[in-house]
Amino acid sequence: MKLDSRQIERFEREGYLFFPALFSADEIRVLTDEVPRLFAQHRPENVREKGSDAVRTNFAAHLYSRPFARLARHPRMVLPVMQLFGEAVYMHQFKINGKMAFDGDVWQWHQDYGTWRRDDDMPDARAMNVAIFLDEVNEFNAPLMFIPSSHRLGVIEAGHDLTTTSYPLWTIDHGTIAALVARGGIVAPKGPPGSMILFHSCLVHASTANLSPWNRVSVYLSLCAVSNHIRRFQRPEYIAHRDFTPIECLPDDCLTRDYDVPLPWRDGTPASAVTA
Amino acid sequence: MKLDSRQIERFEREGYLFFPALFSADEIRVLTDEVPRLFAQHRPENVREKGSDAVRTNFAAHLYSRPFARLARHPRMVLPVMQLFGEAVYMHQFKINGKMAFDGDVWQWHQDYGTWRRDDDMPDARAMNVAIFLDEVNEFNAPLMFIPSSHRLGVIEAGHDLTTTSYPLWTIDHGTIAALVARGGIVAPKGPPGSMILFHSCLVHASTANLSPWNRVSVYLSLCAVSNHIRRFQRPEYIAHRDFTPIECLPDDCLTRDYDVPLPWRDGTPASAVTA
Repeated sequence: MKLDSRQIERFEREGYLFFPALFSADEIRVLTDEVPRLFAQHRPENVREKGSDAVRTNFAAHLYSRPFARLARHPRMVLPVMQLFGEAVYMHQFKINGKMAFDGDVWQWHQDYGTWRRDDDMPDARAMNVAIFLDEVNEFNAPLMFIPSSHRLGVIEAGHDLTTTSYPLWTIDHGTIAALVARGGIVAPKGPPGSMILFHSCLVHASTANLSPWNRVSVYLSLCAVSNHIRRFQRPEYIAHRDFTPIECLPDDCLTRDYDVPLPWRDGTPASAVTA
Repeated sequence: MKLDSRQIERFEREGYLFFPALFSADEIRVLTDEVPRLFAQHRPENVREKGSDAVRTNFAAHLYSRPFARLARHPRMVLPVMQLFGEAVYMHQFKINGKMAFDGDVWQWHQDYGTWRRDDDMPDARAMNVAIFLDEVNEFNAPLMFIPSSHRLGVIEAGHDLTTTSYPLWTIDHGTIAALVARGGIVAPKGPPGSMILFHSCLVHASTANLSPWNRVSVYLSLCAVSNHIRRFQRPEYIAHRDFTPIECLPDDCLTRDYDVPLPWRDGTPASAVTA
């Protein structure tokens, strides 16, 4: 799993790379089998949709779920990010986003790095987003939408939206989005479970409400260059991690074979990780 | 504009027919030029989105706007409906739905005839929905989604949703939608401005939120067989019309040439048409 020069050039130009079906059905099943158990738990890491019990996002499963702890060390996901940054990476944020059938609400237009700089004092945009599809993504279950090349503008002015959904977000105003789309258009990668998207942490993205009867569960990992670790601990640790230890990859078969992984939060979230 | 036997068979099987670019850009411009003036008016016919000033739906423009009064009599739209019903039709409902850029909210899964039977006591599903695109419809601006063949089940049980959006709707529960989609799938016709969809008034449909910077304004006309006129006048007349006079078509060039049309509500909505 090494990116070639055309892929690197494309990433720099458009801000994302799409790898359809990078993980096999057998590998993904190990993860999807675990999701209902995770979403059923009542712990602070499960943020539910406004006015519904559906899970909008689950945080930090790599610290209390064995399959997701193995995914967090998967070379097919980690190595290309290390290659692009030219250094080791640590896990800044780990989410399983529900975007559940019927109940999955919108994510407004935003840049992830905007939040990390404002809230977490991450020095540079040297953190990568990785999305891994646990369900098929099609035109009806609210795929991620990207504005290609929008990452080239760096951090764009944003306002803190505390009301639209159940999760606060630094969102970009309509005039700016219209101008960006006029230049770059919109793309929405679709594909089978096991597909992966790498996208720049300044790439502007959003997704609409999922009215379909198909869940669109995805894992979103944010891998930060170790030298670029966050400086401010304003958000709870289960949202913005403070362990900057470089990720050590497991072998390529780590989803289908059971490797030993630490699960420090298996018996509950430490009190210190819940408050800011 | 006469449907052939394959089209009729297809309509009966799938519940809809799609005619891309049926109206020309010049014809559609006559309508789109009029929309901002209509949406800017403060009259009861403009229903705005929850928490925004954007127009969700405008009712009865054919009674106070010259271009839309001409559209309401257009043979390319009226004749195929008369052909399918084998009798004259009247205008049961006339809407311009905004689904505006950024602000356009969801329409939950529903059947139109469900509402017309429950609220208006329309005897049979002998009323046709016609959607005419005033903007391009693409995968990003929240196209109408249909469940093909769902019209064959007749009226499906529904609950009155008074809270999700700014407009009350009889909506169908998630389990039923999942079962219908498992059989029929979902389709979302896309195309240039001027495209037209005819769809059965029992066809289950929905549309998601429009997060794109592109408006998706459409005209929705509901043409009812004259013998099937509504019996109950529970909803205001601007929503469910009580004039059962058969539509008389204008010539085919009626959008680009100025024919004389009555505009009875030009100076305001009659008080009797606003209350139930």
